[in-house]
Amino acid sequence: MSSTVGQVIRCRAAVAWEAGKPLVIEQVEVAPPQAMEVRLKILYTALCHTDVYFWEAKGQTPVFPRIFGHEAGGIVESVGEGVTELSPGDHVLPVFTGECGECRHCNSEESNMCDLLRINTDRGVMIGDGKSRFTIKGKPIYHFVGTSTFSEYTVVHVGCVAKINPQAPLDKVCVLSCGVSTGLGAALNVAKPKPGSVVAVFGLGTVGLAAAEGARLSGASRIIGVDLNPSRFELAKKFGVTEFLNPKDHDKPIQEAIAAITDGGVDRSIECTGNISAMISAFECVHDGWGVAVLVGVPNKDDAFKTHPMNVLNERTLKGTFFGNYKPRSDIPAVVEKYMKKELELEKFITHEVSFSEINKAFEYMLAGESLRCIIRMD
Amino acid sequence: MSSTVGQVIRCRAAVAWEAGKPLVIEQVEVAPPQAMEVRLKILYTALCHTDVYFWEAKGQTPVFPRIFGHEAGGIVESVGEGVTELSPGDHVLPVFTGECGECRHCNSEESNMCDLLRINTDRGVMIGDGKSRFTIKGKPIYHFVGTSTFSEYTVVHVGCVAKINPQAPLDKVCVLSCGVSTGLGAALNVAKPKPGSVVAVFGLGTVGLAAAEGARLSGASRIIGVDLNPSRFELAKKFGVTEFLNPKDHDKPIQEAIAAITDGGVDRSIECTGNISAMISAFECVHDGWGVAVLVGVPNKDDAFKTHPMNVLNERTLKGTFFGNYKPRSDIPAVVEKYMKKELELEKFITHEVSFSEINKAFEYMLAGESLRCIIRMD
Repeated sequence: MSSTVGQVIRCRAAVAWEAGKPLVIEQVEVAPPQAMEVRLKILYTALCHTDVYFWEAKGQTPVFPRIFGHEAGGIVESVGEGVTELSPGDHVLPVFTGECGECRHCNSEESNMCDLLRINTDRGVMIGDGKSRFTIKGKPIYHFVGTSTFSEYTVVHVGCVAKINPQAPLDKVCVLSCGVSTGLGAALNVAKPKPGSVVAVFGLGTVGLAAAEGARLSGASRIIGVDLNPSRFELAKKFGVTEFLNPKDHDKPIQEAIAAITDGGVDRSIECTGNISAMISAFECVHDGWGVAVLVGVPNKDDAFKTHPMNVLNERTLKGTFFGNYKPRSDIPAVVEKYMKKELELEKFITHEVSFSEINKAFEYMLAGESLRCIIRMD
Repeated sequence: MSSTVGQVIRCRAAVAWEAGKPLVIEQVEVAPPQAMEVRLKILYTALCHTDVYFWEAKGQTPVFPRIFGHEAGGIVESVGEGVTELSPGDHVLPVFTGECGECRHCNSEESNMCDLLRINTDRGVMIGDGKSRFTIKGKPIYHFVGTSTFSEYTVVHVGCVAKINPQAPLDKVCVLSCGVSTGLGAALNVAKPKPGSVVAVFGLGTVGLAAAEGARLSGASRIIGVDLNPSRFELAKKFGVTEFLNPKDHDKPIQEAIAAITDGGVDRSIECTGNISAMISAFECVHDGWGVAVLVGVPNKDDAFKTHPMNVLNERTLKGTFFGNYKPRSDIPAVVEKYMKKELELEKFITHEVSFSEINKAFEYMLAGESLRCIIRMD
């Protein structure tokens, strides 16, 4: 790879020219990494709902033309000035949020919300110089959440790159760079159910199923899946979900239905839909005295979380989490090791696979609600 | 005392005949304790806001005639059938909430909200037989929160009695049976500020000052007191409060004023007013990433806690607590020991003292906002 160091690389990327229009595979120029940046050769990427939301740009700031993609696995091609901990050839997962290692959040044991590199969905450029590293015939193409992995090569801030075990199969562990870690960490790092606990999971997509998997790994005795789509239950069983509730089947609020079958409430709940009434139900369905509700799903701009304060006073806890409270560089390598030690199964999250030229199929599968994760092979 | 065992005791009690009317010292008959009950000789009692609220009965269920009082210290006079862990002569603090020792809450490390003996402000009778132990000329006088300590003798469920060090001065440690423990425990058991933390306390009455005291004992570096009454600050300094903010002095929401002087928010906040907008401010003033807000103050029936869900998602935690998460029987004796070891100072909470016959003065001091705790001597 050394021949490309310091050179512009010409390669294929899937460019979103307009909101909601199919991506177009184009030849792009990828500039060399600048200070504190690395250039990665992406081998596998996956599609996440967040890509779809910002591609649809319904209510989101439209930033186009743009290269989406933020779940991926790749290899370092070259590094910019000041990068000492990564070298060409390292196997890595780029992550949509970062870890500068120096701010109050990075120095806190509890937070992963880095001041410098926290997710910014509106920014389409590198933070170092405010410019894009992608061009087509000299015209800039914008980045997405600092990763833009729908490209054979991409440039990422070093703080957004987790160096992982080179033995780990990138076509599997690439799903750890967003959704699976988000749900898994919500359970293992934030909800922390004790062995024997009863856990409710709202939303049985990838994030919710990863939360269920985390609850299962924690030794939960019952995992109640809540979803409006009953076809999800069969799949959810593989992730430890033992019972299924569809809010549409109940006249009363689903938190009351949950209380009725759990002697007053669950020990832990994890909300993975972003729907505001699901958030409120997720909080109100936990048992008084010790229940903990964890919010994961991202709400709409104008939503209001509303509950009677006595629900809080009665010793319930409400917590929010972002990327499962994992610090990308410090913690993700250990999650990869969990997979390598067979403590964590990733294969069951991967329901589809397409070649890069078929990337629009991945969007179709997700919009049809058919897929959990669709792996996109760059070769 | 043995001559009174099994007998009705005639003694003085301060009876509230009607809502908001001065208490009247009456001769009452106190029946012997029934199964799982103990009869206590009260030596010292104190007045708490909760007595005043239910005495005023504005919006609260009126239960009259009633004997109020729930912060007290006394000595066991006799015990009912099945009581094995208390004997006549034991020094005790009666508590308004209990610990049966057998329910899911009592068996949980996290909860103190006993299913059997959890506070019930509407019940005016003993839970064993649904009857009152107080009468005047045969007509029942109702109990208050299972304690009714404004009487020379009272009958309490054994699960609501903490047996304490007989060396402890009852005229001081009696304040641990409600407000001081509530605030102290909110800090020590729930907010748990780390050394060097910045803590905000909303409401600088007894509970809030006890929360500040807990924050101080935890090694907080700054304790920001928030109160509408600026005269509270001078007193608050004794409890470790280092800064004072009056919401009336600010055009913007107080959470913004707090964020401005704390680089984005406090590490912990403790809400001790029960005012709904203070509750929301207390939550929104904690730092993202690691901030924890603890609600202590009891809201009105129709209040709604409302916040944008992103305030939660950004890794803030909201918790509620009740009686500082202390289990009355298991934990309060150790809080008394903290006082005995001079780790905890109680004298500064005691601003007034009256004899039993002057009990209405204690109400006047509290209504005038002049007192923290007024000790009422039964002799």
